[in-house]
Amino acid sequence: MKITHILFLFIVFSFTVSYASISDFCVADLKAPNTPSGYACKPLTSVTSDDFSFHGLVAGNTNNSFKIGVATATVTNFPALNGLGISALRIDLDQGGLAPMHTHPDATELLSVVKGEITAGFLTPTSFYSKVLKPGDVFVFPQGMLHFAVNSGKGKATAFGAFSSENPTTHILDVLLFGNKLPSGLVSQTTLLDLSQVKKLKAKFDGSW
Amino acid sequence: MKITHILFLFIVFSFTVSYASISDFCVADLKAPNTPSGYACKPLTSVTSDDFSFHGLVAGNTNNSFKIGVATATVTNFPALNGLGISALRIDLDQGGLAPMHTHPDATELLSVVKGEITAGFLTPTSFYSKVLKPGDVFVFPQGMLHFAVNSGKGKATAFGAFSSENPTTHILDVLLFGNKLPSGLVSQTTLLDLSQVKKLKAKFDGSW
Amino acid sequence: MKITHILFLFIVFSFTVSYASISDFCVADLKAPNTPSGYACKPLTSVTSDDFSFHGLVAGNTNNSFKIGVATATVTNFPALNGLGISALRIDLDQGGLAPMHTHPDATELLSVVKGEITAGFLTPTSFYSKVLKPGDVFVFPQGMLHFAVNSGKGKATAFGAFSSENPTTHILDVLLFGNKLPSGLVSQTTLLDLSQVKKLKAKFDGSW
Amino acid sequence: MKITHILFLFIVFSFTVSYASISDFCVADLKAPNTPSGYACKPLTSVTSDDFSFHGLVAGNTNNSFKIGVATATVTNFPALNGLGISALRIDLDQGGLAPMHTHPDATELLSVVKGEITAGFLTPTSFYSKVLKPGDVFVFPQGMLHFAVNSGKGKATAFGAFSSENPTTHILDVLLFGNKLPSGLVSQTTLLDLSQVKKLKAKFDGSW
Amino acid sequence: MKITHILFLFIVFSFTVSYASISDFCVADLKAPNTPSGYACKPLTSVTSDDFSFHGLVAGNTNNSFKIGVATATVTNFPALNGLGISALRIDLDQGGLAPMHTHPDATELLSVVKGEITAGFLTPTSFYSKVLKPGDVFVFPQGMLHFAVNSGKGKATAFGAFSSENPTTHILDVLLFGNKLPSGLVSQTTLLDLSQVKKLKAKFDGSW
Amino acid sequence: MKITHILFLFIVFSFTVSYASISDFCVADLKAPNTPSGYACKPLTSVTSDDFSFHGLVAGNTNNSFKIGVATATVTNFPALNGLGISALRIDLDQGGLAPMHTHPDATELLSVVKGEITAGFLTPTSFYSKVLKPGDVFVFPQGMLHFAVNSGKGKATAFGAFSSENPTTHILDVLLFGNKLPSGLVSQTTLLDLSQVKKLKAKFDGSW
Repeated sequence: MKITHILFLFIVFSFTVSYASISDFCVADLKAPNTPSGYACKPLTSVTSDDFSFHGLVAGNTNNSFKIGVATATVTNFPALNGLGISALRIDLDQGGLAPMHTHPDATELLSVVKGEITAGFLTPTSFYSKVLKPGDVFVFPQGMLHFAVNSGKGKATAFGAFSSENPTTHILDVLLFGNKLPSGLVSQTTLLDLSQVKKLKAKFDGSW
Repeated sequence: MKITHILFLFIVFSFTVSYASISDFCVADLKAPNTPSGYACKPLTSVTSDDFSFHGLVAGNTNNSFKIGVATATVTNFPALNGLGISALRIDLDQGGLAPMHTHPDATELLSVVKGEITAGFLTPTSFYSKVLKPGDVFVFPQGMLHFAVNSGKGKATAFGAFSSENPTTHILDVLLFGNKLPSGLVSQTTLLDLSQVKKLKAKFDGSW
Repeated sequence: MKITHILFLFIVFSFTVSYASISDFCVADLKAPNTPSGYACKPLTSVTSDDFSFHGLVAGNTNNSFKIGVATATVTNFPALNGLGISALRIDLDQGGLAPMHTHPDATELLSVVKGEITAGFLTPTSFYSKVLKPGDVFVFPQGMLHFAVNSGKGKATAFGAFSSENPTTHILDVLLFGNKLPSGLVSQTTLLDLSQVKKLKAKFDGSW
Repeated sequence: MKITHILFLFIVFSFTVSYASISDFCVADLKAPNTPSGYACKPLTSVTSDDFSFHGLVAGNTNNSFKIGVATATVTNFPALNGLGISALRIDLDQGGLAPMHTHPDATELLSVVKGEITAGFLTPTSFYSKVLKPGDVFVFPQGMLHFAVNSGKGKATAFGAFSSENPTTHILDVLLFGNKLPSGLVSQTTLLDLSQVKKLKAKFDGSW
Repeated sequence: MKITHILFLFIVFSFTVSYASISDFCVADLKAPNTPSGYACKPLTSVTSDDFSFHGLVAGNTNNSFKIGVATATVTNFPALNGLGISALRIDLDQGGLAPMHTHPDATELLSVVKGEITAGFLTPTSFYSKVLKPGDVFVFPQGMLHFAVNSGKGKATAFGAFSSENPTTHILDVLLFGNKLPSGLVSQTTLLDLSQVKKLKAKFDGSW
Repeated sequence: MKITHILFLFIVFSFTVSYASISDFCVADLKAPNTPSGYACKPLTSVTSDDFSFHGLVAGNTNNSFKIGVATATVTNFPALNGLGISALRIDLDQGGLAPMHTHPDATELLSVVKGEITAGFLTPTSFYSKVLKPGDVFVFPQGMLHFAVNSGKGKATAFGAFSSENPTTHILDVLLFGNKLPSGLVSQTTLLDLSQVKKLKAKFDGSW
């Protein structure tokens, strides 16, 4: 007689939880609305091995003005991360490429350089912290800090990274200031940037003026 | 050619999150049920500037036996607070007015006096902590403490405050003990209050006896 | 005139929260999907005293190969625990009975012996911590530790316990390794157990091989 | 050659963490000050099996006016609970005994009756929830709720319980209101209790008046 | 015989916690280093009523280029807030005054206007949310959002507010970009601001160039 | 006159926090004891850019029986991660190499394959989830799950990864069961492994028997 059968009553009484509900993980049902703690869980019966792997953390297209390619695996394209507080990214920078000043309001970011040379840094009210990174180096941008990364070497650069949130957002400073419909005068007034500078960048970032 | 267009692929690959889901904020959909972390989020497309402001944190009606007016802006009337762990209140006390003994089981409360004089305090098993507050003074009632506030000056008093929860509850001691249907004998037995005292207050607070 | 009536405006303005939403507790609606923070809340109007009590934390059936009976009160059978981060268990061990090596990936466990003698312990990379427990003794298994409990006395043993999660899962090592369809070769390769040992236990635990 | 030796470099590089710091648990050093997250950790080298067990969760002395005996295992007498968010208690009630109205501002409480009959309940602004409990029944008092427990049967009653905090506090209503030096007039004013009632109970609870 | 005396054994056994350790609150010992959860707690025996009140949430000096006065009550000047996750502020804006673009990386902010008219808003990658606020209006800036407030009325304006952190930091965009020693070229490169604009503002904000 | 000077009073009143205390980050002082929330913070004045970068996330030595090289950047060698809830790892597997069955009791792990082919999987009471991963693929091991990774391709394999904890521990099953002094009989009894199997592996892992 198999132990599994003998175990039956034992398991039914004590460990029903493992069968009837999802608590070891909570793969997101992205068709349901989000909540402050994440998405509702897919039924356990429809979860398969495929849910726990993501395909496509590869070099992104760098054919843009910043010469940057970015790929991310977050809850919206990798639903198994729901509730787990972590996500992955890869950035590729062509020679001369850079990640412009931006923040992740809700996540710390780790960056591990695997190729080339990247100068990374972040800003605080009293200082800036910056390093030239080579393969094998890791940099940390604490949550909410305004930060940047520049390919400071010759040739391409690549880094793998992670966020301390499964659903991080990225706020590029230029997009915030110049990509919205916020009137140029108000931007100028609240940043002390010259009005002409504001209008010039609004034109580039498609905001109104 | 505008940078926004050039940025297109970059943004699509990396920052889809910001567009497809709500993670910078989660304005409550109050028609959906609550969860332990708060309400489900309204779709981002239906969120407007109006969601982030609340109207009516004004002097409440003090025409009651405690001569207190209270206004609150919490998730149930200011849904943008959902998941943010904070809410606002204003209290007005006529001369002789007071906030009777009560607790907020799930929130710390800050009180900033802007007019008049208020004596505020809270109780612990070994001590009580109390101060006479004037305009410019702030008092803190740590989470779950039994506390009170009394207009101890001449004329009206006003204070602005905040809770460390977007959905605080208020448990007025008299309402708990005398406003429910808990039998008078049981109240007396578990509080050591005289039965006659219990019945007298139950009559006032509309409980059965 | 009753104070309740006088209180009316006061309460309407300030404490609507207590009436309109569930925030002192969130009894689970188990028909709705789970989220990372727990289940959606039942409407307050359908919550009764019965929701806050559970029946059946009694001696479980020990007629199994481990001679163990387990009863648990967790959110799936005691929905009032939703969001509260705690649950209860009782274990009964016949003479010679034991709880085999297992983990609770998401909960610390407390065990209070009330009858008999139980030897309990857990394993870390550098040590093991173990004690012989008598009635009145309490043992703690920190979250995620591989642990066991053996009836090391004469006669039956009983303990009451608690988990620091309302929805803990239990991972019995033998069930993980041998109760799944993971190929025997892979189990052997990743555990260094002899293939014959793996197959022997897979046969017992109904896994494939 | 033993695998342990072969594993050496592997372990040194990757799993130093397990050896050099305490992260699987954090046994409190009670001689250091507390922090909002708990006490500092004892050095791992001085942690032994004895740290993980507590002795003395036995029937407390019921020779007092409430005929209640209480024993608790919390971080202050069971330092291994530090940071784990759980603690244990046992209450014994002689016939006619009771736990008077009280709150735990920072913890949910579970109560599992093992002997006798206990009537337990808690109060909210709109209702009270109460049940007669027999052996095998579990009751939950959500965090911060004013609650009580009465031996409603014949003979003694015993219950085991747990708190969702390793360092819960207990606020007995009578001790809060009458055991402090808060002036009787202020107590009366903020509770609506008659002044004579306040003075009578202050005399019992040793407060000033 | 007083109940307090009768209660003695009861209290000693069960509620030692309340006496021997600080758990209802944790007033900061600012001479000790901070930890991720806050400062170490002052001994309970040295805590007094004075610890729970703060003096000075009054109109700040507006004699500066932004015509803004700010007063805050946070853990560094109001140590009782330690671990409680909330703090208070007051801002005063002269006619024409404003709070320039800034973020609080670790706190949501509530702002309740009590006098005058304030236009407040925040920016996201896809939109901006802004309102004209009058007395009685409350605005919320979710955590980490770039935001501003402008006195858009005639005469002075005043608002009371709160942060969802006891130790918030404030990152004024101009100070971040131009008040540090970050080379002008790097600022220009990562923000797309003209080099001349960067140098002009660096001169104002005392950074190097 | 420079704005910085004009800003002086403004900043002194409102943003003292940013200067006097560390709240944007908390670089660990590893000489102080740990707490449940992490280590005490180094004084801000001694923090430099060097604190935010780590050197050495390179291929580890694979000259061991599992043919695995592991490098990690966690709080104990990268103190800036303190309190940030994230850390980094790199694993290299020679042909035929593998990471044996293990758990991280306190962290979810992400693994991004950059070279070769890795078969990764984890076990639950009811299923196993496993995938063959190629460069560009990411796998997630939810917190506390027993898991493994095998080089299933030809040639070497490399992956970068992250943990959702700054101080994760690693529990290799064989080390837990056979590397401690737990008596062989007890291991056999609580795992159902044959005693001869236990002794054989204890000999390899240097435990007593």
